[in-house]
Amino acid sequence: MEKLKNIRLSDSGDSIIIIDQTLLPSELRYIELRTREQLFEAIRSLRVRGAPAIGIAAAYGYYLCAREDAHRKDFFDRMEGAVDYLSAARPTAVNLSWALSVMHGALKRNIALPRAELVELLRREALRIHEDDISSNRRIAEYGLTLLRDGSGVITHCNAGPLATSEYGTALGPLLLSVERGMHIRVFADETRPLLQGARLTAYELMRGGVDVTLICDNMASIVMKNGLVNAVFTGCDRIAANGDAANKIGTSGLAVLAHHYGIPFYMLGPLSTVDMNTPSGGGIRIELRSADEVTEMHYAHRMAPEGVKVYNPAFDVTDHSLIAGFVTEAGIITAPFEYNFKKAMERKENGLC
Amino acid sequence: MEKLKNIRLSDSGDSIIIIDQTLLPSELRYIELRTREQLFEAIRSLRVRGAPAIGIAAAYGYYLCAREDAHRKDFFDRMEGAVDYLSAARPTAVNLSWALSVMHGALKRNIALPRAELVELLRREALRIHEDDISSNRRIAEYGLTLLRDGSGVITHCNAGPLATSEYGTALGPLLLSVERGMHIRVFADETRPLLQGARLTAYELMRGGVDVTLICDNMASIVMKNGLVNAVFTGCDRIAANGDAANKIGTSGLAVLAHHYGIPFYMLGPLSTVDMNTPSGGGIRIELRSADEVTEMHYAHRMAPEGVKVYNPAFDVTDHSLIAGFVTEAGIITAPFEYNFKKAMERKENGLC
Repeated sequence: MEKLKNIRLSDSGDSIIIIDQTLLPSELRYIELRTREQLFEAIRSLRVRGAPAIGIAAAYGYYLCAREDAHRKDFFDRMEGAVDYLSAARPTAVNLSWALSVMHGALKRNIALPRAELVELLRREALRIHEDDISSNRRIAEYGLTLLRDGSGVITHCNAGPLATSEYGTALGPLLLSVERGMHIRVFADETRPLLQGARLTAYELMRGGVDVTLICDNMASIVMKNGLVNAVFTGCDRIAANGDAANKIGTSGLAVLAHHYGIPFYMLGPLSTVDMNTPSGGGIRIELRSADEVTEMHYAHRMAPEGVKVYNPAFDVTDHSLIAGFVTEAGIITAPFEYNFKKAMERKENGLC
Repeated sequence: MEKLKNIRLSDSGDSIIIIDQTLLPSELRYIELRTREQLFEAIRSLRVRGAPAIGIAAAYGYYLCAREDAHRKDFFDRMEGAVDYLSAARPTAVNLSWALSVMHGALKRNIALPRAELVELLRREALRIHEDDISSNRRIAEYGLTLLRDGSGVITHCNAGPLATSEYGTALGPLLLSVERGMHIRVFADETRPLLQGARLTAYELMRGGVDVTLICDNMASIVMKNGLVNAVFTGCDRIAANGDAANKIGTSGLAVLAHHYGIPFYMLGPLSTVDMNTPSGGGIRIELRSADEVTEMHYAHRMAPEGVKVYNPAFDVTDHSLIAGFVTEAGIITAPFEYNFKKAMERKENGLC
């Protein structure tokens, strides 16, 4: 199966070509970004998304800005402006500001070079960031696979596959690699509301890669774990604080609490560039709040997941009594021990005492 | 505000009039059910839904069957058939089979009566089941409200309001009652995938009742709890086993695990008829598996929640490091203590050792 090239510099070097991820899985369309405004819009509206991928796109974008403005007197100010402008497209993932600061650092160190040489150096720097991501992902896939055995089950959340990164992806890397190694891993993909990256992208990428994937709504993860169907949780990460608190797609922390409760190890997979040692703990991570209509309206066409995807759709789940503080009934609030207290309440009701 | 009459017997007594809950919040339409097949379809496709409500609808349906078949020689067999047929519409909620067995018990005890009298007795029995539910709900609302204080926050899941029951509802009863008492309770309503009963029905009912409600995706409950915005979780329940294990809408058990983790009490609200003493524990509760297209396709029109509903839509959340078994990076799998091990990994990488 041909690998998807989610981000690349065009052959002429004057634009970035990306897959518009908002159209998947219905349509695989490549779009061309030529200006910083187009890149900002593409990051903001998730046409290019995934922490490592937006870092790579921003590195190429920085190079395009430098190429465009190389002749200007206010070149350096313009480049500082580009860093501030592009960093603001999405505030939570550290990779965006990380890639821009790597690019800007290269510019500052080499500002004395003739402009044409400087621009060429920045092109090579952006390509290096991209190539580093590919090689990091390959290693992450190998390391991650050591956590699984043939027949293992894994839950993943959101999309941390090739589309979100480059080549193998992070959280999906070991799963895609497992197919090459002839292993069978059963994956449950959270659909990941509100924007359904799990249904639209993860299910698509894993099916494309020959992985046994079953789509679930986010609220079904508890029962999948309770039923013993998974041995590990693998997610990506957008920013990791120095103490290990980690920001990732909304819902990740809940998945981690569930995994903890059910005794299932919870792993986050990502390059070291995701670690932000300047942020001591999670409390310091700014969380992006997005628009209400992502929740109240469905942006996508009728079909939200790939044709033929397996789905697990239980209408109910069972909550263990140890987790229930009480039942509020017409006969009062019944607490543990439940069986005894149910009987007492029923007797009270029969005797007309409530 | 006029109370919604979600289920009632028509004035002529030959049909059941229900609100078609699949059309809310876009449209408030009443439909008339005349045959057992129409009632089966209405329960199966969730036009009438909520454990107590389908019990009430089934009681009226049983009466309609008796009225229709009263003249037949095989009357008793037909009524046994009606019980089996209607019970199968949805297997998990106990209230459906409970109401049918109450009705069938009344028939068996009074089988010697002249048919016209017997049919009239069954009509009164169905009305009694409905009235009992109303009075139970009123009590549940009062008891539930004792668990809250002015200014409290509550998360609820799915829809256990007037539409799912009669009058006040179960889980939503205390919240609606709080408005009458001049209290301010802040409610977070899980949208409740796949069929969005929280977005469509709970947000609608609470806004209609003047309650301060904010809609969230199911996977946002963790962060709402972590941010200290709620003091309790209130849900309905479909079947409670003798030991207190309780089946309710998919996602409830996950919410309970989260509440437990964050030290927030988790309450289920419902009439005692929800307790099934014949089922010792949750393992014995049959869970309905529904069709894949509920997950992969969106059945509803563009707008999925009431106009003007408040929404909380963070794009990310932070997972506490204590819940993370490890970070899989290109420099290996990093476990706790994280800060120390991040530094070591970064040093290894800088020195080209990985």
